[in-house]
Amino acid sequence: MAPTPSVTNGSDIAIGKSPVTSRASSVYSEVQNSRLDHPLALPSVFQKPFKVVNGPESSAAGNPDEIAKLFPSLFGQPSAVLKPSESNDPALALKIGVVLSGGQAPGGHNVISGMFDYLQERCKGSTLYGFKGGPAGIMQGKYIVLTPEFIYPYRNQGGFDMICSGRDKIETPQQFKQAEDTAAKLDLDGLVVIGGDDSNTNACLLAEYFRSKNLKTRVIGCPKTIDGDLKCKEVPTSFGFDTACKIYAEQIGNVMIDARSTGKYYHFVRLMGRAASHITLECALQTHPNITLIGEEVASKKLTLKKVTNYIADVICKRADLGYNYGVILIPEGLIDFIPEVQQLISELNEILANETVDEGGIWKQKLVPQSLQLFELLPSAIQDQLLLERDPHGNVQVAKIETEKMLIQMVETELDQRKEIGQYNGEFKGQSHFFGYEGRCGLPSNFDSSYCYALGYGAGALLQSGKTGLISSVGNLAAPVAEWTVGGTPLTSLMDVERRHGKFKPVIKKAMVELDGAPFKKFASKREDWAIYNRYISPGPIQFSGPVADISNHTLLLELGVEA
Amino acid sequence: MAPTPSVTNGSDIAIGKSPVTSRASSVYSEVQNSRLDHPLALPSVFQKPFKVVNGPESSAAGNPDEIAKLFPSLFGQPSAVLKPSESNDPALALKIGVVLSGGQAPGGHNVISGMFDYLQERCKGSTLYGFKGGPAGIMQGKYIVLTPEFIYPYRNQGGFDMICSGRDKIETPQQFKQAEDTAAKLDLDGLVVIGGDDSNTNACLLAEYFRSKNLKTRVIGCPKTIDGDLKCKEVPTSFGFDTACKIYAEQIGNVMIDARSTGKYYHFVRLMGRAASHITLECALQTHPNITLIGEEVASKKLTLKKVTNYIADVICKRADLGYNYGVILIPEGLIDFIPEVQQLISELNEILANETVDEGGIWKQKLVPQSLQLFELLPSAIQDQLLLERDPHGNVQVAKIETEKMLIQMVETELDQRKEIGQYNGEFKGQSHFFGYEGRCGLPSNFDSSYCYALGYGAGALLQSGKTGLISSVGNLAAPVAEWTVGGTPLTSLMDVERRHGKFKPVIKKAMVELDGAPFKKFASKREDWAIYNRYISPGPIQFSGPVADISNHTLLLELGVEA
Repeated sequence: MAPTPSVTNGSDIAIGKSPVTSRASSVYSEVQNSRLDHPLALPSVFQKPFKVVNGPESSAAGNPDEIAKLFPSLFGQPSAVLKPSESNDPALALKIGVVLSGGQAPGGHNVISGMFDYLQERCKGSTLYGFKGGPAGIMQGKYIVLTPEFIYPYRNQGGFDMICSGRDKIETPQQFKQAEDTAAKLDLDGLVVIGGDDSNTNACLLAEYFRSKNLKTRVIGCPKTIDGDLKCKEVPTSFGFDTACKIYAEQIGNVMIDARSTGKYYHFVRLMGRAASHITLECALQTHPNITLIGEEVASKKLTLKKVTNYIADVICKRADLGYNYGVILIPEGLIDFIPEVQQLISELNEILANETVDEGGIWKQKLVPQSLQLFELLPSAIQDQLLLERDPHGNVQVAKIETEKMLIQMVETELDQRKEIGQYNGEFKGQSHFFGYEGRCGLPSNFDSSYCYALGYGAGALLQSGKTGLISSVGNLAAPVAEWTVGGTPLTSLMDVERRHGKFKPVIKKAMVELDGAPFKKFASKREDWAIYNRYISPGPIQFSGPVADISNHTLLLELGVEA
Repeated sequence: MAPTPSVTNGSDIAIGKSPVTSRASSVYSEVQNSRLDHPLALPSVFQKPFKVVNGPESSAAGNPDEIAKLFPSLFGQPSAVLKPSESNDPALALKIGVVLSGGQAPGGHNVISGMFDYLQERCKGSTLYGFKGGPAGIMQGKYIVLTPEFIYPYRNQGGFDMICSGRDKIETPQQFKQAEDTAAKLDLDGLVVIGGDDSNTNACLLAEYFRSKNLKTRVIGCPKTIDGDLKCKEVPTSFGFDTACKIYAEQIGNVMIDARSTGKYYHFVRLMGRAASHITLECALQTHPNITLIGEEVASKKLTLKKVTNYIADVICKRADLGYNYGVILIPEGLIDFIPEVQQLISELNEILANETVDEGGIWKQKLVPQSLQLFELLPSAIQDQLLLERDPHGNVQVAKIETEKMLIQMVETELDQRKEIGQYNGEFKGQSHFFGYEGRCGLPSNFDSSYCYALGYGAGALLQSGKTGLISSVGNLAAPVAEWTVGGTPLTSLMDVERRHGKFKPVIKKAMVELDGAPFKKFASKREDWAIYNRYISPGPIQFSGPVADISNHTLLLELGVEA
């Protein structure tokens, strides 16, 4: 039986201009309700007394000397791991803040629930503050005190609306001071920053700042991003990736069955993931599309847009010969960012558009270098218009607004028309475009993400209780049952390298890109020729929360952990 | 345990140019596999001996005299209902054909499975022929003999790829003769046509043709369409509607949580359903969006595009006053077909474009009547271009290609900019467009659609065994447990009216539109003002196949049956 009544009828009225409204009185669907009391297993280390043990000293992902200079107080600190013990650390009542930073990812609410439950169970009398609307909430001192009643309706639910998120950064000396003031005012023992690579870099800078000023507030990060590009050996995956990929793969699988049933459409599916193509790769492993473009490979092979177009057209021609005039093609959102010649064209266009008028006669085009002109002329006219007309507030071309899937459909169509004329293609081509994006960021978290996030939050609580700072909550051994998962923390400085910006070194957690010699890509590469020609479509279906298939995670994780071949 | 091995590894190679490839060797996901042996309950009438009993004589939905002339052999025949009996009809071995006609809808494979199982159990020695690629398969005599091994991998699976579908019609005398030849060659006792309103009209014409020529082949229809617009008292819903709406509602619910978490986007979601807005209405009842446009209401109130735009802008302004600069808006695919002034403009444009050149100076616009000119000038320039440039093979403007959600975003943006200038709006508006379409047509059927389709197929088998023709398989009492469902057949002529086309009466099954005084619309209308201003979002989550929520059908059905208030 549910220990607390389920969420039922009621309203959700904004108070003033606050972006945060409680779900306490929201109407829930049957499935949402069924998730509220879903029991979450915990790693067994939490079942008994434990202590936080130091691991080996750490270095940096690159340029350790520079990282050491940037983080004099934190650099080199050891990792931490939770080990069974005779007795627990003394159960102090702590004051902890938590903030969600950046884009939504399924499971964020469970990180907070995990922290809350840890504090309730292990540090009675503690207070958990939720900073509202992202890091701006820290700087402006906007928070709510989280209570069991407030948290309950968010358990195992998607979204970030419990305290909402934001994309502000704590960057300037004044902003660090604001954060310090808030920490002092609330007498914070710790702060947990739930975010991606940028947010965790920011968390580390804040940890360094507090430590350097001998303030008591510790800072712990948690790895969040559906893009899956914040990961390393100690942090095998970021939360939200599992759920988002499953949501996209469900849709892709449905479209595949439709393609096969209808027999006359090529579906071009663009998927979220601007920097890295992990989502596209994972969806390919789950569904076996005919063509999958991986940005990192396109960049590595220095492919031109023409070559990408030809590759797609080649497969379509081969399939036409076999009688298939349909198929499914996956495209990462950030594809054209990976094509060097496109980057070149964009930068020339930005230069020209800033200084010249674009005459109708096209004399302005003479400013383009020949290769860029050739590329520009190759683009469909709608895309040309978009490049010339739609600019961001700085006057720059908005690459992000280009609907890559529609551009490719038009380019492939043109290519196939030419091949048809010379007798190299005799099929029928009809493209259908799709973008699967927002619907994956706030779905109900899968069982894996629910449990993973809960453990990340529980672990963050333990790290703070033991006085750790500058670590990212790290839950490992993820292919095993939850009870066998390891829990600890990894020094954020150990994930860092520097980038030179405006003549200064800036610390960055490098995005984990798709490794072309990694197991997931190699698995894909070994299969794709077969998938291209034959129809090996798999339809994963909707995420199930109970039954034998509910607890399976994803191929990327299992391949990287070496438990899937 | 599974009585037959699950579907595992293997290939799916096209043979020649055949559009049909077996799934026998397809790779299945865990969820697909788990569905194969999902036990399907049957209406209790099938548990024991039964007989097919005649109901009252029938008439037509309109113009009975004309329908009587068009269907002299069939008009007025009674409905049929299955009743428990002392003994079964003699179990003759039958030869039956089945065909899928028109667009995909989840559950089609289960209609065929149900027919097959009925014949296996009740009419041993029967043969079931699957006509390939829709009605063209009947005319061309292209079929496969369905076997238990062939059918097994399609049980409870989405798609129509078992025998594929097509949009051809059997219309000309020559085509009827072709169908007759095929029926004679295969010695068919019966034919089941699984399709929408057009296909069932065609099925009835074929039944009349066979009957009028004293041929033994009977024809039974089955109600298929995700659009939900083929229904009447005796046929409470068409299959596929339940699953498709649940798939779209899952996505809408996710987008809602994202909207609430992010707090800065208005999501404009276009949903499938060109003729009727049932899908949009059902999705609204499942998710409670801020704004829902229902085509039938727009037409009934003779709303202009400007009025629709203002209505959306009004809600956005009110929400901005409350601090909400986000929301979710549902739009039926066929919206602009319902706006009379748009129809007028399109027809003028078709006329002008056929006879004039469109000069850059815009002199051609003088040919538009003032109201049409005003509307044209109101449209965003991208839409203007689309109207002028993209034409179908007959030279007509392609209304279907207009991305209504993007058009509305631009129009609302313009309207809000104007209101901002005069101080009537001080929020921030950012629109995000979505189209949820193809991903809903071929999903794994919900438990409801799985059972409903199986019963439809079982019932079709029983009707054919008892020698019925010109009926549509009718399963009723759908709010009760499956065991209590009623099974029978409704005369197709009783669903018909006539339309005058090219001076001739043509029989048509009128599409069931959203009734503005029907329970689903009234429920929606009573709530929408509240949903507009406050956030009553419901996130239905992914379709579950087991657990307490798996068997719930949809609001439209339950409201129309009077079991939901």
